[in-house]
Amino acid sequence: MTITITAFESSPDRGRGLARDFRVRWALEEVGQPYDVRLVSFKTMKEPAHLALQPFGQIPTYEEGGLALFETGSILFHIAERHPGLLPHDADARARAITWMFAALSTIEPTVVEREMAFFLEREETWYSQRLAMIEERIRKRLMELSTWLGDAEWLDSAFSAADILMVTVLRRLESSGLLDEYANLAAYIARGKARPAYQRAFEAQLAVFTAGNT
Amino acid sequence: MTITITAFESSPDRGRGLARDFRVRWALEEVGQPYDVRLVSFKTMKEPAHLALQPFGQIPTYEEGGLALFETGSILFHIAERHPGLLPHDADARARAITWMFAALSTIEPTVVEREMAFFLEREETWYSQRLAMIEERIRKRLMELSTWLGDAEWLDSAFSAADILMVTVLRRLESSGLLDEYANLAAYIARGKARPAYQRAFEAQLAVFTAGNT
Repeated sequence: MTITITAFESSPDRGRGLARDFRVRWALEEVGQPYDVRLVSFKTMKEPAHLALQPFGQIPTYEEGGLALFETGSILFHIAERHPGLLPHDADARARAITWMFAALSTIEPTVVEREMAFFLEREETWYSQRLAMIEERIRKRLMELSTWLGDAEWLDSAFSAADILMVTVLRRLESSGLLDEYANLAAYIARGKARPAYQRAFEAQLAVFTAGNT
Repeated sequence: MTITITAFESSPDRGRGLARDFRVRWALEEVGQPYDVRLVSFKTMKEPAHLALQPFGQIPTYEEGGLALFETGSILFHIAERHPGLLPHDADARARAITWMFAALSTIEPTVVEREMAFFLEREETWYSQRLAMIEERIRKRLMELSTWLGDAEWLDSAFSAADILMVTVLRRLESSGLLDEYANLAAYIARGKARPAYQRAFEAQLAVFTAGNT
């Protein structure tokens, strides 16, 4: 069955792999599954046809036959259940990898997104520098805890998994902040993710959409 | 195998069912699994023994034989995979329920938590009322989208599932805000969750910890 995902017609990140469809592209490349992409405008995302697939008016969505999913965690899990390579076979190792999928999205990502939202909504406010300092203190705490957990390990829990796709893409949203410079092992972890051929194919595919729309 | 979870020795919510161990208690009550509780102090949560189970120094954790998990989404999923009653059998309905588990934790909870964090960290700041208004505008948008999705349905996606445990407990954190009053179907949805016998047993069990520690 054909897999169709949605992505930004014009990505705010200018094709740098930060929009969330990238996670789904990367996962599909890891397992060697082809997919179609339907590009949506910001206007289209708020219209009934898209809201029926994604009630919060966001991308990506995932369609396969009569099934429609959203939330990158859920989409990656769905792909991982159907194709080898994204979750360990051993039951305990699999449960731990799923824990780390949720940790990336529930424990790390919210503070990273709060920093981005503050930039969009508060950067002209008199309090912005104080707020940014408060947010970054909380991000540093999380990064230190994550760095301590990771230590010298290659991936979050032994083998590469869908959790690493989520965590690397969440951490990448901090690349321009300088916050990652304080944690050499996290920077190396991100670099390992980016060096994977599947990551690079997904990156080229996402960038091609932006390039095509801006030539 | 004995299941052991961790919970606050002295819960900041005074036993009102808002601490995150409540979600795990509720899920275990739904499937009729007994469990032990190990109470941890705020000091204990930051010590190496707890950090080995939960690298971010939080509760709850879940131990079963040699397996140790954290993140309520992951723990609920683990329980749901092993016992009937928390995820549909039909593959597509199951995938949709998992989507809603992630939606509760990735799309709804972060803004709810941001409101709580602003209260803790910013309520003495001159900008607090402006910030609160900005956060509540974003929460209202999410609640409206969720309310539209839910409509007259009883649960998020046909049958009651682990996603409803997560969504109801996330929404309950807004009960004192007044924000839920604007969405009658969401208030009724929360009430349906609270009326379940398993919810009530979990609530009594969590409240008993607080009461025992404060007599």
